[in-house]
Amino acid sequence: MRGLELSQARPTILKIGGSVITDKNTELGVHMDVISRIADELQEANTRNLIIVHGGGSFGHPVAQKHAIKEGFKEEQQIIGFAETHHVMTVLNGLLMDALIWRGIPAVSVTPSSCVMTRNGRIQCFEDSPLKQLLKMGFIPVLYGDAVFDTELGFTILSGDQLVSFLAVRFNAKNILIGVDVDGLYDADPKKNAEAKMFDRLTLDELKNVKGLVGGSTAYDVTGGMSSKIAELMPAVEHGIPVLIFNAAKPKYIYKVLKGDRVKGTVIEKE
Amino acid sequence: MRGLELSQARPTILKIGGSVITDKNTELGVHMDVISRIADELQEANTRNLIIVHGGGSFGHPVAQKHAIKEGFKEEQQIIGFAETHHVMTVLNGLLMDALIWRGIPAVSVTPSSCVMTRNGRIQCFEDSPLKQLLKMGFIPVLYGDAVFDTELGFTILSGDQLVSFLAVRFNAKNILIGVDVDGLYDADPKKNAEAKMFDRLTLDELKNVKGLVGGSTAYDVTGGMSSKIAELMPAVEHGIPVLIFNAAKPKYIYKVLKGDRVKGTVIEKE
Repeated sequence: MRGLELSQARPTILKIGGSVITDKNTELGVHMDVISRIADELQEANTRNLIIVHGGGSFGHPVAQKHAIKEGFKEEQQIIGFAETHHVMTVLNGLLMDALIWRGIPAVSVTPSSCVMTRNGRIQCFEDSPLKQLLKMGFIPVLYGDAVFDTELGFTILSGDQLVSFLAVRFNAKNILIGVDVDGLYDADPKKNAEAKMFDRLTLDELKNVKGLVGGSTAYDVTGGMSSKIAELMPAVEHGIPVLIFNAAKPKYIYKVLKGDRVKGTVIEKE
Repeated sequence: MRGLELSQARPTILKIGGSVITDKNTELGVHMDVISRIADELQEANTRNLIIVHGGGSFGHPVAQKHAIKEGFKEEQQIIGFAETHHVMTVLNGLLMDALIWRGIPAVSVTPSSCVMTRNGRIQCFEDSPLKQLLKMGFIPVLYGDAVFDTELGFTILSGDQLVSFLAVRFNAKNILIGVDVDGLYDADPKKNAEAKMFDRLTLDELKNVKGLVGGSTAYDVTGGMSSKIAELMPAVEHGIPVLIFNAAKPKYIYKVLKGDRVKGTVIEKE
């Protein structure tokens, strides 16, 4: 590739929670205003070496739950359910891609079900040559939680959080930024308990003591609430990659975290 | 995969030309009526062991041409052009998928740029485990011409026709059905020359003698007209896979060819 400046810097991985960009109270309900605002912030931040992963919210989760896609193939009727689950995720992804691309952000969607196979729900193979090339050439890959094929189960759900952790380790990420619809990690569900206390910083050892105490963050979450999110992120933290959990529903927070500014949130580090 | 009936039959590959489903005179112009009709015909035919590949028409071609994506990376401004080309193809694909899925057809889109790498424009690696699983489980994979990554050029265009031929050989297809907006293969461009004579049947040897004489079929075609289409299909014909070129713009033709009924068109066979 003549004349091409190859980027070798460690990427940042930004997760945009499904609960942030969709309306969890309405099936296929989307917060287009939030998608537009996030696209504005990404344009302003102008970050390169960035991988974006988004969740399914009211698109992927209700359809996947209805057809028990996560549990794997059990009956013929699930076949159209799998097709629907994947399709609605591509629709949500398309809305985000539209907002990014027409702002001149060189974002390219990477479809998990086209390049990942899982085994009992865990990523077994990931054809990452296209993704590597995307990063080298300065594109911003955008992935998402998806209905994927599984060597044992036939199919299952691959959560955005498992993808984030996997990609962080595979590409030796600089950091992981987890945008959710609450301010950080609490010792109880902040939406149900006014006494819930937020952690500013936790080490892996400290985290292991609070695991299981944390509340769920969304009404629809076939991949589990905050505690399963934390469990997914642990391998990346073990690998030495710091995680920041912050509120992406608050204006300017995505811009600030991409710029390296301190915002309210929970930092999780190895030590 | 307990209880799963695995399909091992040789698949049929159906190409739906970009000129059939899009309006070549308008950028991003789509024939939604044609997409709906084709989806109706696919639903009625109820074919399994089917792989669908569609072209880019007025979606992929004008954007790709404007940014010279096929020629590979030469300058920074092409980066957003690549992102746009891939994005508009996912939009066209989404319109077709919508029509298929809401009719209960278990179609799943497979994104070429997520699982294929080319080398100087030719498919070098294709991660086909998800595609194999799709076919085994009775889904209908839907692929399309796409902007893809290339080990030498940085990126390029992978035509739907190259994909068709590659998949036909890889999966030892039963037959290849090429739906275009003319009745078959002519000895001159039937849109410009009223004297153009259509071939009913050609062998590979006969085809080699007429190659280069055939007219283009679309106004936008960064991947070449009918002659480059034929050149792409040759390896599959050499492999013993028969090709039928027919008019998919005519109602019921897709239904009939899937049912094995004879329609007007050009058959190309090895001998």
